[in-house]
Amino acid sequence: MAAVQKVPDIVVGRLPVYLRALQVMAAEGREITSSQELGERLGISSAQIRKDLSYFGTFGKQGTGYRIPDLIEHLRRILKVDRTWDMILIGAGNLGHALAQYQGFTPRGFRLVAIFDNDPEKIGRPIGPHVIQDVQELPEFVRAHRVQIAMIAVPASAAQQVADLCVEAGIRAILNYAPIHLKVPKRILVQYIDPAIHLQQMTYYLGNEG
Amino acid sequence: MAAVQKVPDIVVGRLPVYLRALQVMAAEGREITSSQELGERLGISSAQIRKDLSYFGTFGKQGTGYRIPDLIEHLRRILKVDRTWDMILIGAGNLGHALAQYQGFTPRGFRLVAIFDNDPEKIGRPIGPHVIQDVQELPEFVRAHRVQIAMIAVPASAAQQVADLCVEAGIRAILNYAPIHLKVPKRILVQYIDPAIHLQQMTYYLGNEG
Repeated sequence: MAAVQKVPDIVVGRLPVYLRALQVMAAEGREITSSQELGERLGISSAQIRKDLSYFGTFGKQGTGYRIPDLIEHLRRILKVDRTWDMILIGAGNLGHALAQYQGFTPRGFRLVAIFDNDPEKIGRPIGPHVIQDVQELPEFVRAHRVQIAMIAVPASAAQQVADLCVEAGIRAILNYAPIHLKVPKRILVQYIDPAIHLQQMTYYLGNEG
Repeated sequence: MAAVQKVPDIVVGRLPVYLRALQVMAAEGREITSSQELGERLGISSAQIRKDLSYFGTFGKQGTGYRIPDLIEHLRRILKVDRTWDMILIGAGNLGHALAQYQGFTPRGFRLVAIFDNDPEKIGRPIGPHVIQDVQELPEFVRAHRVQIAMIAVPASAAQQVADLCVEAGIRAILNYAPIHLKVPKRILVQYIDPAIHLQQMTYYLGNEG
């Protein structure tokens, strides 16, 4: 790893956004794009995009832009979503059911392999192609299947306890839907799905005109 | 507005993240913080945080840091969430039910005022404190109540049509949960809730060790 330059987290954070925009362009039947066009779509400067990509080598040619399928492949490899990652879900409420049916995971590199809940009324019931399992079986499942990613969709009051259980079982990355800040060891990755963050990014502009 | 410097979108995008971190600190009983501490919590450089905040005036004093309650108040005013924004929700499926019960909106400046669906089986049924309304009533409701924000939680196949209806009715900001890219006029603000983006930000790091 000595030769690899450490990439700032904030740069890594933008790569999936570039990938999504490129995949939208590909779906539109496009083959070539430029940092200018990408930048305009995303509200990011073209210089920033070129700088971000330069951490990972040379993409595209001066003046001819990027070949979209190639850049998609590069980004998928960089983000390690040129493979499929198994995930578990904890919480089989309304949100859990929505996530179990979500069509956006598979094409982006993720596969839900098990769903857990602690409610005896729910355990054993079908949810999409799965059967809801007792959360007490989570540690064994995670170890047996070497799952690294968990999505937490339980009420806020239960989320920390569930996170602790996941970490203890060997989960290394958590996508948290509960509206609380999780306390986990530094080595554990956590991302938050937080609609209020996105709403507040819009009210800034609404307020300017309203 | 002539005297106000245009703030880059990417800076605006970070303000709600700062606000959330400060509110977590406040909940922990903290009164003072620094750009260093905030930066460490968020994986953003302290220089970046100071620069972002400098667009909006002078906060804190050299060497003494920021008073957390003051900075929270400033950010709430800048983001215009020192008031409450009415929102509508379209889609009363599992995700819609989860959003209707979500506890994270009210403390952050948002209030759900109506829920719409096009399914005759669902229209008229209660959902939390609301009754599901026919989506055909959306335009009149939006105009009568001057609602500016809509959350779209319908299947991908219906999302563009719903977005068109919202824009036509006068909605100015859309939070889209459907896994598709919406085509809307430039003046309309759109944010996407996209779990795959967050998952891909983590696999980059998982892959490095896995």
